[in-house]
Amino acid sequence: MERTDVNTLGEFGLIEHLTRDFPLRQPSTIKGVGDDAAVIDNGGLCTVVSTDMLVEGIHFDLAYVPLKHLGYKSVVVNLSDIYAMNAFPRQITVSIAISNRFSVEALDELYAGIRAACDTYGVDLVGGDTSSSPKGLTISVTAIGQCEKEKLVYRSGAKAGDLICITGDLGGAYLGLQLLEREKRIWQENPGVQPDLEGQKYAIGRQLKPEARKDMIETFRQNGLKPTAMIDVSDGLAS
Amino acid sequence: MERTDVNTLGEFGLIEHLTRDFPLRQPSTIKGVGDDAAVIDNGGLCTVVSTDMLVEGIHFDLAYVPLKHLGYKSVVVNLSDIYAMNAFPRQITVSIAISNRFSVEALDELYAGIRAACDTYGVDLVGGDTSSSPKGLTISVTAIGQCEKEKLVYRSGAKAGDLICITGDLGGAYLGLQLLEREKRIWQENPGVQPDLEGQKYAIGRQLKPEARKDMIETFRQNGLKPTAMIDVSDGLAS
Repeated sequence: MERTDVNTLGEFGLIEHLTRDFPLRQPSTIKGVGDDAAVIDNGGLCTVVSTDMLVEGIHFDLAYVPLKHLGYKSVVVNLSDIYAMNAFPRQITVSIAISNRFSVEALDELYAGIRAACDTYGVDLVGGDTSSSPKGLTISVTAIGQCEKEKLVYRSGAKAGDLICITGDLGGAYLGLQLLEREKRIWQENPGVQPDLEGQKYAIGRQLKPEARKDMIETFRQNGLKPTAMIDVSDGLAS
Repeated sequence: MERTDVNTLGEFGLIEHLTRDFPLRQPSTIKGVGDDAAVIDNGGLCTVVSTDMLVEGIHFDLAYVPLKHLGYKSVVVNLSDIYAMNAFPRQITVSIAISNRFSVEALDELYAGIRAACDTYGVDLVGGDTSSSPKGLTISVTAIGQCEKEKLVYRSGAKAGDLICITGDLGGAYLGLQLLEREKRIWQENPGVQPDLEGQKYAIGRQLKPEARKDMIETFRQNGLKPTAMIDVSDGLAS
C-alpha cells in the first residue's frame, strides 16, 4: 500500500486534502472549513464555532510553561478566532487527556488559568470531556460565539486596494519562545543557573500569556466600523 | 505540595471538581456542564453542543479497530449526545493529533469513516484542527445541533413515577469488546491463528460500528411525543 508522509502536505494542505470531499448539506451551515471559524444560522443570531488542540511536546513545553498560563492561553487562542470573524465569544468547551503524572492539584492550576480567561473575556465553560492518556497532556478547546449575520467578517471579503492593518507586534511571541528555549538549554547544561529573563517581560508575556483582541472588535462596534475582511494571524503571518 | 491522584475522584467526580467554580454569566447559556450537551439560546433556534475525545490506547486499540470504523464511531458517539437532548445534530468539528507513524492514506481511511457518518446522519463537517503528536492518535469531535427551546429534553426532567425506557441492547458493545480482546490475546500468543468471530457479527458491530438513535427522535417528532427526560447511556448504564 502506498504511504505518503503527512509532512509532504503541510498542516493546511492536509486539512484541505482531508476535508475537500465533504459536502455542506445543512441549510444552517453558512461557512464551513476555510476561515477562522465556522458560521451557523439559527434564525436569530448566528453561531460562530472554532476549535484548537494543544499537545504537550508539540505546542507547549511544561519545562517553562506554567499550567495556569497554559490553561489561559488554550482558551485565548480559540477566542481570537471568534473575534477574527467580528463576533463575540460566549461559551467554551474544554476537553483534556492526561497521563497519570498529572495530579488533581496540577489540573486545578490548569483550570485556574482557564477560569481566568473565562473571567477576562466573559465566556462560560459549558462542557467538555476528561480522559486518560498514555503519555502527556492534550487540551482541545472549542469556542462558540454569536453575531448578527450582517456583521460577520470573512477572510474572503478582502479585495484589491484594501488597506491592510495589523494589531499587535508581529514576532513578539516568537521572540519570547526563543528566549525561553535558550534559558531551558542553559539550565539543562547547568541546573544550578537561574534563568536570566530580566528586561524580557514583554516578549515572554506575548508567548506565555497572549491576549485576544476583544478591544478591537469593541472599538469597531462603538465606531460603526466593519472591516472588509479579517484573519487571525496568531498562528504566524504566513499561516 | 499535596498530590491527589486523579483516580480518587473518578471521571465524573473530576469534571465536577474542575468545573464547580465556573459561573455561568452569558444570558444565552441555557444549560452548561451536567447534561448530555450544553444549550445556547440564539433568539431563534437553540444551539446544542457536545464534545468527546478519543485517545489511542485508552478508548481504542488499532490492533483490531479499523481506522474507518474509528472515524465513524468518533462522530456517532457525539451525535448520540445531541439526540439525547431531543435535538438534531447539524454540524461537527473534528480535531486530530497524530504521530508520524500515520500516513496520509491512513488518515484518508479515518476521514472516510467520518464522511460515512456525516452522510448517514446528514451532518456537515465545518471545522477542526490537525496537529502532530509525540505518540499515538487523539481525536476530538464537537457536535453542534439545533432545537426549538420548548422541545429540548433534559436529564433533570425525570420525576418519580416516570416509566423508564431503554433503546438498544445493554452490554452489546461490551460483549463485542470482550470478544475482540480475547481474539487479540490468542493472536498475540500465536500469530498464525486467524480470529474466530463467526456468528458474533452483532456484538462486534455494536462495538466497532455503533449507531446513534436518530430514528427514535424522528419517531418522537412524528408522533408528537416528548419524553420528560433523556440520557445517553452509551458510556455505560452506570455513567
